[in-house]
Amino acid sequence: MRMFDLITKKKRGGELTVEEIGSLVRGFVKGDIPDEQMSAFLMAVWFQGMTERETGNFTLAMRDSGDCVDLSAISGFKVDKHSTGGVGDKTTLIVLPVFAACGGVAPKMSGRGLGHTGGTIDKLEAIPGFRTTLSETEFFEIVKREGLAITGQSAELAPADKKIYALRDVTATVDSIPLIASSIMSKKLAAGADAILLDVTVGSGAFMKEVPDALRLAETMVAIGEAAGKHTVALLTDMDAPLGLAVGNAIEVAEAVQVLIGSGPEDLKTVSLALAANMLVLSGQGEYEVCAEKAANALSTGLAFDAFCRMVAAQGGDVSAVKDACKLPQAAYKETVRATGDGYITHIDAEKIGLAAMALGAGREKQGESIDMAAGIYLKKKPGDFVREGEELAFLLTNEQERFAMARFILADAFRAGEKPTEGRPLVLARVTRERIETYLSTGR
Amino acid sequence: MRMFDLITKKKRGGELTVEEIGSLVRGFVKGDIPDEQMSAFLMAVWFQGMTERETGNFTLAMRDSGDCVDLSAISGFKVDKHSTGGVGDKTTLIVLPVFAACGGVAPKMSGRGLGHTGGTIDKLEAIPGFRTTLSETEFFEIVKREGLAITGQSAELAPADKKIYALRDVTATVDSIPLIASSIMSKKLAAGADAILLDVTVGSGAFMKEVPDALRLAETMVAIGEAAGKHTVALLTDMDAPLGLAVGNAIEVAEAVQVLIGSGPEDLKTVSLALAANMLVLSGQGEYEVCAEKAANALSTGLAFDAFCRMVAAQGGDVSAVKDACKLPQAAYKETVRATGDGYITHIDAEKIGLAAMALGAGREKQGESIDMAAGIYLKKKPGDFVREGEELAFLLTNEQERFAMARFILADAFRAGEKPTEGRPLVLARVTRERIETYLSTGR
Repeated sequence: MRMFDLITKKKRGGELTVEEIGSLVRGFVKGDIPDEQMSAFLMAVWFQGMTERETGNFTLAMRDSGDCVDLSAISGFKVDKHSTGGVGDKTTLIVLPVFAACGGVAPKMSGRGLGHTGGTIDKLEAIPGFRTTLSETEFFEIVKREGLAITGQSAELAPADKKIYALRDVTATVDSIPLIASSIMSKKLAAGADAILLDVTVGSGAFMKEVPDALRLAETMVAIGEAAGKHTVALLTDMDAPLGLAVGNAIEVAEAVQVLIGSGPEDLKTVSLALAANMLVLSGQGEYEVCAEKAANALSTGLAFDAFCRMVAAQGGDVSAVKDACKLPQAAYKETVRATGDGYITHIDAEKIGLAAMALGAGREKQGESIDMAAGIYLKKKPGDFVREGEELAFLLTNEQERFAMARFILADAFRAGEKPTEGRPLVLARVTRERIETYLSTGR
Repeated sequence: MRMFDLITKKKRGGELTVEEIGSLVRGFVKGDIPDEQMSAFLMAVWFQGMTERETGNFTLAMRDSGDCVDLSAISGFKVDKHSTGGVGDKTTLIVLPVFAACGGVAPKMSGRGLGHTGGTIDKLEAIPGFRTTLSETEFFEIVKREGLAITGQSAELAPADKKIYALRDVTATVDSIPLIASSIMSKKLAAGADAILLDVTVGSGAFMKEVPDALRLAETMVAIGEAAGKHTVALLTDMDAPLGLAVGNAIEVAEAVQVLIGSGPEDLKTVSLALAANMLVLSGQGEYEVCAEKAANALSTGLAFDAFCRMVAAQGGDVSAVKDACKLPQAAYKETVRATGDGYITHIDAEKIGLAAMALGAGREKQGESIDMAAGIYLKKKPGDFVREGEELAFLLTNEQERFAMARFILADAFRAGEKPTEGRPLVLARVTRERIETYLSTGR
């Protein structure tokens, strides 16, 4: 099997066999296939795509390139949750405690984030003492006892994906649905849960800007998961405006806690409950309506917050900082962004808010860069709100004063206003399962 | 200008500017742009193509990556000739002497061949003593005195093309019309002639298998040449069956000599005269009919053969070996391929004949491999001929007896026969100039 022939087959639109895919991935990891051949292949995939079968085989070959976590020592039906990322996306911090409070089992392994803000792991490190590098024994013990734990990846999951992604990153082949889907799913399948809930974000602050692309990605990932024997469901959620009001690390933890104690922004609560209910459905706790009620109760009774606090304590975190946000990292500098006229906020560009948060120090551009836990943006207004000239639109937070200039520059036209409020789209846009796609696009926000 | 952005632009179908093309080619030659990015770009070109303007700029950037030969020391209007290659293609050995005998000036630089047989340079080395590595002074002197000389490339012409071609060769991006056209033309433009005649071969023994592809390649190359200020004409010539009867090195020289002395196969003579006449037209010697007559006269009067002999002598070759083919390298072993039934030969697969010749030792697969000058295949029958069972179809020649088995295996169904002769297509299929395309496809052979 010569790599040259595999490139040729793909560029002509052919479907690679399971053996061909296997030799391609193994050969690349071993270094037998050089970067220049792999990148030509990836560009051919960008143009020709991959069939469902090919994408599945590509995913499994990447999964099998490294360790697969064996979660069988933890009893119960384990459900994993993954978001394709967004601005102000702190749902994991709410969804997992809700799920665990309802009796679900959620062993969550998470990577560090690249982008606007840190990933879930980074955000949790805003809690003093919180340890995100657990040994496998420790991780298993906490999940068994508390129903949830969130740790950084210790095992090397899907190293082929890591190597291929690095190449895609420099050869403009990231934005390919089969490549994105197989990259995400190779790691999810290696992480060993029994079922997977995917949150596919869509809008200006998400990787997928358009609903049709996001739907295709969701369908592709669900097909991969199901073909690999794991029940998989995907929700399409709106990421045109930031989710909630807080965009950063410490301030996102604080906002998640607000939702867990019964207050907090409605949009964040709505999306989080929809995700938690779907995790419960996946774990066999009943029909959607039943599960939605269970999830809502877990919030209103405070049981979800208890679960969160127990996890924080078990992972060494200071629970008093969870209960009193003043004990979380505070920014030395704060500036206010004010409205320059009257009107209804019609749009807040999530991507610009995210970039500005990164400019303030809340995210990293390159792996290994440090993050300012206190930096970020706190919105005072959301789409639909009426503002008068001079009113506060947002706070900018940072520990490095010189960062304000760039953030303000990026934010220049992030807020749009009009004479009338515009009607938004639903927060949960669609639900994708193996059997069907339910879309909620016409129901209004 | 980041390479990432250039890849993205091309993959989305954009047109690169002259500055972008320049920085791409220079960056790659300098090593600033790594192979994996260049190969992704080349695959994007494979899918999206290049506009005429882009292809032209790409060609000029490659031309300018190395030396350009200055032929101004040689007076007169210099015409170069290039063939895209084929099986039994020895036209240069006939066309250049005919052209020179009519007063044309033909300073020809040629590379060594990869493939079925050697290139023109390799073939000429079958003549004892013939030197193909001339100094520039010597090369110029011979052209001034005799009107023609054929030498290997001494200067480094278009090194960017060499480096890009090496990458295309392993990434399945060779078969792209703009990349093929720019590769050929970058070297032709660097070689410094005043006008260029292109012989674009088409058929089973050529790189271009189909007429529409060959026409596109011809049009693209003509456009590049004209845009660069050189009059350029392309002939599309048939390469479905081998040209002439001899496929090899020494036996091709001998066959070219036969045509030069007034015998030899009709097809080879016809194509050679058409090429020579077009070179004369390019050099301003009159209308096509006038030039065709001049070319025919140069053959029939023996003046072309004289020119050939003078070039051989000037380049150190043994003229007596040109006049007596027995003095050319002779194969130690010869086998006969015979017909297995009666019928008219309807097709001789040029590609298979070429591969079999290579298997006998007549060509090289990799640069630097040596060639068996005496090896090759001599056809006894051509399409249209009637054969009876047991009659000779071809001789196989080699100095290594163990090579026969593979050659016979390749030749298994190279000859096709039927009850009636089939009508072939014209040998010269089309003539492409900047102004128009003349096709001769309906005129019969």
